Amino acid sequence: MTKEALLLTIAVLGGTGKEGKGLAYRWAKAGYRMIIGSRTSEKAVTAASEIMERLEGGSSVVGTTNLEAAQQANIVVLSVPYSAHRDTLESVKEALKGKLLVDVTAPLVPPKVSKVQMPPAGSAAQEAKEIVGEDVEVAGAFQNVSYKHLMGEEDVECDVLVTGTSKKARQEVLTLVEAAGLVGWDAGPLENSVVAEGLTSVLININKLYGSKHAGIKITGAPRPL
Amino acid sequence: MTKEALLLTIAVLGGTGKEGKGLAYRWAKAGYRMIIGSRTSEKAVTAASEIMERLEGGSSVVGTTNLEAAQQANIVVLSVPYSAHRDTLESVKEALKGKLLVDVTAPLVPPKVSKVQMPPAGSAAQEAKEIVGEDVEVAGAFQNVSYKHLMGEEDVECDVLVTGTSKKARQEVLTLVEAAGLVGWDAGPLENSVVAEGLTSVLININKLYGSKHAGIKITGAPRPL
Repeated sequence: MTKEALLLTIAVLGGTGKEGKGLAYRWAKAGYRMIIGSRTSEKAVTAASEIMERLEGGSSVVGTTNLEAAQQANIVVLSVPYSAHRDTLESVKEALKGKLLVDVTAPLVPPKVSKVQMPPAGSAAQEAKEIVGEDVEVAGAFQNVSYKHLMGEEDVECDVLVTGTSKKARQEVLTLVEAAGLVGWDAGPLENSVVAEGLTSVLININKLYGSKHAGIKITGAPRPL
Repeated sequence: MTKEALLLTIAVLGGTGKEGKGLAYRWAKAGYRMIIGSRTSEKAVTAASEIMERLEGGSSVVGTTNLEAAQQANIVVLSVPYSAHRDTLESVKEALKGKLLVDVTAPLVPPKVSKVQMPPAGSAAQEAKEIVGEDVEVAGAFQNVSYKHLMGEEDVECDVLVTGTSKKARQEVLTLVEAAGLVGWDAGPLENSVVAEGLTSVLININKLYGSKHAGIKITGAPRPL
């Protein structure tokens, strides 16, 4: 357990969903204090208990509403379906001031989820930045990782492209990527989030056409970060 | 040499540039009849001669103007800097009717080439489609492959994401990817080209930060196409 992990509390809004729960599981295991957020605290409490059951003692995972989760955390991870993206952010934005928001959302628009369809802001992460305003650092990450990989213990063969409003924000998220047992890359400014978000549709397309279930990407030709 | 290769002539507009020349070299080697296009035929003739010198006998590579190259080819590959993208397409669009246009362009906007900055159409490939109109199939591909890899003989560790206006167009381009010795994936409709084009900026960013020169991507978790 690192010093950072001891000091930081991470909220996962929408942490009852498969990907959010998987991320919370991995970070709790790494020693972070975790808060699962959901629209109702009951569902969040249930998800927190599930994660605690899978973990050794000494971990800290609690469940509450999205708003209370955001209020009590240092870092807030948003893992909701795109249809709930704006409303969730509007409902917690006051609690985000001075904090880091990590947006995991791929803005899929059913029924054509294998076609890239970005919001007018350019990407979900840029839209989040527009909603939360100046006092919040925003990063985009984890859009391409299959939740099945997160709940398992094996190595995940999918790199994470990390974009963000500052180098410091990207570095903080790269620490979280590593804590989750994944390999992350600084992929540049938040405007570049369109690549990782859009890649989700490309990978859905590949899964459909090539008979796979968990297609991902790996960066080649560069020294892999530790 | 396959039957298709014997029947098809490929023009590479901007084929005097490093990436275009690399692609032309690989396709000529695979048996396709190649036409290098450039703004002036002199430069194109020189590039064609360079390629012929590197190849065994039996290959066919000629050079001429972009317009004449487009007129005489079955498939037209556009490999120009983004600053010349619109003008080149306007100048050849009449010659493209009924043909397949393969857009290799990543719309980099200097000086911030590591930041994704797409044109209003959504991507360079979608902009190309707007310019050339209904009678031309358009595909996007090869935006992430380093030219150094193309001019060499070794295996290229960078997969190619192929998008296009129809499944048939994508299949035709996947055949070209394979002929160039690369692994390609059907990445869906032309709207998805923003991912591959934007990835070029992400990879430039990775090269800058991680000290690499030829970062690329590989699809994981899916059976690799033959």
